[in-house]
Amino acid sequence: MARIAVVAGDGIGPEVVAQARKVLDAVLPGVQATEYDLGAARWHRTAEVLPDSVLTELAQHDAILLGAVGDPTVPPGVLERGLLLKLRFAFDQYVNLRPSRLWPGVPGPLATVKPGEVDLVVVREGTEGLYAGAGGTLHRDTPAEVATEESLNTRHGVERVIRDAFARAGRRERRKVTLVHKTNVLTHAGSLWSRTFEAVAAEHPDVSTEYQHVDAAAMFLVTQPQRYDVVVTDNLFGDILTDIAAAVTGGIGLAASGCINPEGTYPSMFEPVHGSAPDIAGQGVADPVAAVLSAALLLDQLGHADAATRVSAAVATELANRAPGVPVRTAEVGDRLAALAAG
Amino acid sequence: MARIAVVAGDGIGPEVVAQARKVLDAVLPGVQATEYDLGAARWHRTAEVLPDSVLTELAQHDAILLGAVGDPTVPPGVLERGLLLKLRFAFDQYVNLRPSRLWPGVPGPLATVKPGEVDLVVVREGTEGLYAGAGGTLHRDTPAEVATEESLNTRHGVERVIRDAFARAGRRERRKVTLVHKTNVLTHAGSLWSRTFEAVAAEHPDVSTEYQHVDAAAMFLVTQPQRYDVVVTDNLFGDILTDIAAAVTGGIGLAASGCINPEGTYPSMFEPVHGSAPDIAGQGVADPVAAVLSAALLLDQLGHADAATRVSAAVATELANRAPGVPVRTAEVGDRLAALAAG
Ligand SMILES: CC(C)[C@H](C(=O)O)[C@@H](O)C(=O)O
Ligand SMILES: CC(C)[C@H](C(=O)O)[C@@H](O)C(=O)O
Repeated sequence: MARIAVVAGDGIGPEVVAQARKVLDAVLPGVQATEYDLGAARWHRTAEVLPDSVLTELAQHDAILLGAVGDPTVPPGVLERGLLLKLRFAFDQYVNLRPSRLWPGVPGPLATVKPGEVDLVVVREGTEGLYAGAGGTLHRDTPAEVATEESLNTRHGVERVIRDAFARAGRRERRKVTLVHKTNVLTHAGSLWSRTFEAVAAEHPDVSTEYQHVDAAAMFLVTQPQRYDVVVTDNLFGDILTDIAAAVTGGIGLAASGCINPEGTYPSMFEPVHGSAPDIAGQGVADPVAAVLSAALLLDQLGHADAATRVSAAVATELANRAPGVPVRTAEVGDRLAALAAG
Repeated sequence: MARIAVVAGDGIGPEVVAQARKVLDAVLPGVQATEYDLGAARWHRTAEVLPDSVLTELAQHDAILLGAVGDPTVPPGVLERGLLLKLRFAFDQYVNLRPSRLWPGVPGPLATVKPGEVDLVVVREGTEGLYAGAGGTLHRDTPAEVATEESLNTRHGVERVIRDAFARAGRRERRKVTLVHKTNVLTHAGSLWSRTFEAVAAEHPDVSTEYQHVDAAAMFLVTQPQRYDVVVTDNLFGDILTDIAAAVTGGIGLAASGCINPEGTYPSMFEPVHGSAPDIAGQGVADPVAAVLSAALLLDQLGHADAATRVSAAVATELANRAPGVPVRTAEVGDRLAALAAG
């Protein structure tokens, strides 16, 4: 039976995770969940971000379900570097999977795109690039200060995520992969990404390919998001592009993500793209759909594709039936989704 | 009398630049223009990108008007590093100015935004960051390959562009500056940008400020572009965000930019954000508005604010009168704009 570590976190995190757990229980009875208290609240209370003992315990689970961590009083970087990125790197979660669909019933911001037309997935590299933490500061707080950030890219890291993107594309209907980078300016990393992409593409004659600079891709995600199927890109570009993709498909309230270690050597982690939203926390009005869709990604990763499909179908029904302008009630949505998914 | 160097370039570059020159001649009779043959065509013919002698000649002008350079057969980086970025760096064009307005009459892609509601300007740093060209490759074409790109940020470079952003905001109605970075991950560069931003903000109590992570800003540019007035950000973030801003305000066919050396030690350069668009080159159907608006930025920079205003007003009239769906004729638009701007 699947053992899930649950990090509910801060703000709306616990509220939305509670709904994701209802749905998990409904489709996979007997799933074992262990709660871990991590995030801003824990840090304020104990000054601990992620004790080694907790990291060791987390490693013994099949997957991690995370709500959201953070609040505005924690200095930037503390929880990001110390918890979220620490987990992605420690557990070698090199595939950061971010699907975006414009679900029927969801009012997207684009006048030109119809529901159902957008169905793309960004495969974002998760363990390299500018997220490596390779940077420094010299002459701090003087007029001579210089600060650096280094993007580190290895053939190893680039190839494995590109392979994952092609494998996913091969299982989809349109079988198309778009590489996004900035090869005309970042010529070293860009060349590594391009050469690796071409080498892997040559092994997949059934998958069509294209390349776009990140600025062009950011634009086309707004003007023609329909054109994308699978997008593979580096860590920072993926961070930006997936928020655009979320925006054009109804907002981060619906955006799910998985930080995946495809080999299963370490647990994969699933979390909504949204943050802890302290402004609406505790009111029971956060939309749990992103958390529930993240649970669907979790199910899929653990081999429960049928259960994952039932959860997605439940979300589709829920969204199609939402009356425009009526505020969401977190727990009610969770109850409905659990009932729908249980079938 | 103003001496302008004109680099018409490739593809639609010459077509749109011709219209910008018509308009310049109409509002500033006697402007001296010298043509320079640079870009993909020149590179194919002579293998030269930017000879030192040409760089020296360009330096003797008051400003440079550039159409677009490049074609798909030039390897990535050759013209970008060798020509465009070379000019930005050699002429210390540290303010990359990119205004975005949703002009009345322009069908934007967003269902939620009305014409006239978006009027923002991105002040993008132009001489540092990941564009510094500090990167390398080791063990190329082996499984051990590693490629790096380094973002270099100095207090000197960050402070001067932030100062420019605050000065511009102080002359605008809403007087608001948004800093965009990724301080929670790029902690070194992010800290330098934040600390410098706060120091400069303290000298401008009349200007309101906010900070956003680049992923959030990319999202809000799609969902609420109205919220921005002046955005200041680093070189790469600015590259991406300005294409989103262009997309939500009617596309890069309308997006102007200036690479500005505010002190006037070196010439500033003005160019449409769009590329050479070889697919539509030579057909007389490229929209010259972006080039003409770039000429307006040029006029403004050279102290001809009245002439710049007349050009903007001409563009406003042109766009408000465009019948939806009717294709643009490049030269006719240029003629109309010149006549309108001449008054
Ligand atoms: C919180 C932050 C470290 C994170 C990232 O940049 O990856 C977030 O923006 C995301 O997209 O998951
Ligand atoms: C062509 C390229 C070097 C350039 C950039 O990245 O700055 C372009 O995208 C731009 O925005 O002017």
